[in-house]
Amino acid sequence: MKPTPANLPPVLKRLGELIGPDLERTNAIILEQLNSQVELIPKLGAHIIESGGKRLRPVLTLLSAKLFGYTGRDDALLAAVVEFIHTATLLHDDVVDRSDTRRGRATANSVWGSKAPILVGDYLFSRSFQILVAHADLNVLRIIADACAVISEGEVMQLVATNDLTTTEEHYLEVVRRKTATLFTAAAQIGAVLNHRSRAEESALAEYGTLLGIAYQVVDDALDYSASNEALGKNVGDDFQEGKITLPVIHAYRHGTPEERAFWSDCLEKREFPEGALQRAIQLVRERGSLDYTLARAKTFADEAKAQLAILPDTPEREAMAMLADFSVARSY
Amino acid sequence: MKPTPANLPPVLKRLGELIGPDLERTNAIILEQLNSQVELIPKLGAHIIESGGKRLRPVLTLLSAKLFGYTGRDDALLAAVVEFIHTATLLHDDVVDRSDTRRGRATANSVWGSKAPILVGDYLFSRSFQILVAHADLNVLRIIADACAVISEGEVMQLVATNDLTTTEEHYLEVVRRKTATLFTAAAQIGAVLNHRSRAEESALAEYGTLLGIAYQVVDDALDYSASNEALGKNVGDDFQEGKITLPVIHAYRHGTPEERAFWSDCLEKREFPEGALQRAIQLVRERGSLDYTLARAKTFADEAKAQLAILPDTPEREAMAMLADFSVARSY
Repeated sequence: MKPTPANLPPVLKRLGELIGPDLERTNAIILEQLNSQVELIPKLGAHIIESGGKRLRPVLTLLSAKLFGYTGRDDALLAAVVEFIHTATLLHDDVVDRSDTRRGRATANSVWGSKAPILVGDYLFSRSFQILVAHADLNVLRIIADACAVISEGEVMQLVATNDLTTTEEHYLEVVRRKTATLFTAAAQIGAVLNHRSRAEESALAEYGTLLGIAYQVVDDALDYSASNEALGKNVGDDFQEGKITLPVIHAYRHGTPEERAFWSDCLEKREFPEGALQRAIQLVRERGSLDYTLARAKTFADEAKAQLAILPDTPEREAMAMLADFSVARSY
Repeated sequence: MKPTPANLPPVLKRLGELIGPDLERTNAIILEQLNSQVELIPKLGAHIIESGGKRLRPVLTLLSAKLFGYTGRDDALLAAVVEFIHTATLLHDDVVDRSDTRRGRATANSVWGSKAPILVGDYLFSRSFQILVAHADLNVLRIIADACAVISEGEVMQLVATNDLTTTEEHYLEVVRRKTATLFTAAAQIGAVLNHRSRAEESALAEYGTLLGIAYQVVDDALDYSASNEALGKNVGDDFQEGKITLPVIHAYRHGTPEERAFWSDCLEKREFPEGALQRAIQLVRERGSLDYTLARAKTFADEAKAQLAILPDTPEREAMAMLADFSVARSY
């Protein structure tokens, strides 16, 4: 069920109180900077950006800036850049995965075909660096440029590991760290940089972001075998159909009988899906304790994320960051 | 026919004498910076980068730096970045156009499918900014970031104009200026920036790059209706098959009989190709004087490019730039 004001999770309500106006400034900048004489660009960009999404990454930037009492205007600008880069990766991901649903609506590639999202994704990347060159200091530029390179490396790693059941949990986590957590790292770190805080505080925020991002992605990968389509906003079983080797599968395969391993291999490596394959996969992941294992791993990462916050000022923003870590594991969507 | 030492065009021989070692430094940096723990990245990157290509854009950077007596090492680094960005756009272009041949060999997408080139292209973009943040001044960063945004806008404009025979020559030239000439502009301009030259000299070099880039692309679009596959290094008629509205078509359509216009519309707008369509298109483009017109337009741009050089120091590098402008029109590949 999508959150409405009535059933809003406490953390989102708290975020609204703490950084509601900042998020609105961020959204205004996103729409403003999305502008281009080439009409298709704002149109396609708005399709995905306005479809909602949880704005988790810009939230991290805004929270971490405010945690140290930041009162300037650059926090929203950088939060907008972080969301632009996230959006660019989503556009390209959906083309690569041939996904047809995201955030409960048709993906850009299913509306416009794959060509426009590739090029508009490139535009959003470029636009991000344009904004940074015009407004940000070299440290922020370095953080974002490094993040983008690591993210695309992670995406290529994930592609190479597709359909390969010999993928280890360690390799899976390395892919997750790169392709998903890296932007969380950068988003949280930027707040400390904006406030010229100590190296220790900057590292703590960066590490909090990394661990939160890993927890978030690991839960996402669990939800692909458990949530309802409606709750997930995309199709349950997408990872399975695409042959992505995620933690629930790695665990279920490792603990499966020879017959079960043959089933996983048929589906994920040979791409031969017997009738009712997804239902059986969901059942096996549950029976083998792989879903519980995956969520337990995610909880460990979320707890480690919270532990990073100890050295930071004890403020409402820090408290909200701890709530976000809990929420990343507790969420059902 | 591909150039060999024996039949090397005079301009390429001259470039070898002037900046041969610098081009070698550039190539070494390209291979070094292409490195990644993720094996597929250097592998796919090398496939396209080592396939040759004329290295026109890095040549511009090296020539323009040397024109003012530059003796530092950053020229090759920036030339490598320019080639990285060019390569990223080629990888994405070939996916968007579903091209199967480039520079006389299979495109990355026809070898690895479309997923890897999208992600490796993203990596090359990101890597370029990483290198710039670590080594270049903010002016160069701004030039490259601006160029990337304009290039991707141009690509989207071209996509929108596909299959649309109402495209005007003016609109076509604006697309060419953005998607192709912009990187020539930046490549040439950087040399002046590296040497801290006057605004007038920087502008002259930038304008030279723009006009050369337009001439180059306009000739390329003519060759798509005239060269042999072997000479072109890609398939003749690719633009025609893809419904790209280039200058030869715009001219032939404007000057065609009603029956000829119906033919162009069937092929380019409705994508219904009668038997022998490409042969007929090539014939019409020739008979209507559209090929001559297109090449004459290109020659005007090349001449204007040369005229920009007047205010620059009279050096062998300037002479080579003038030769490049002539070559862009005279080349048959």
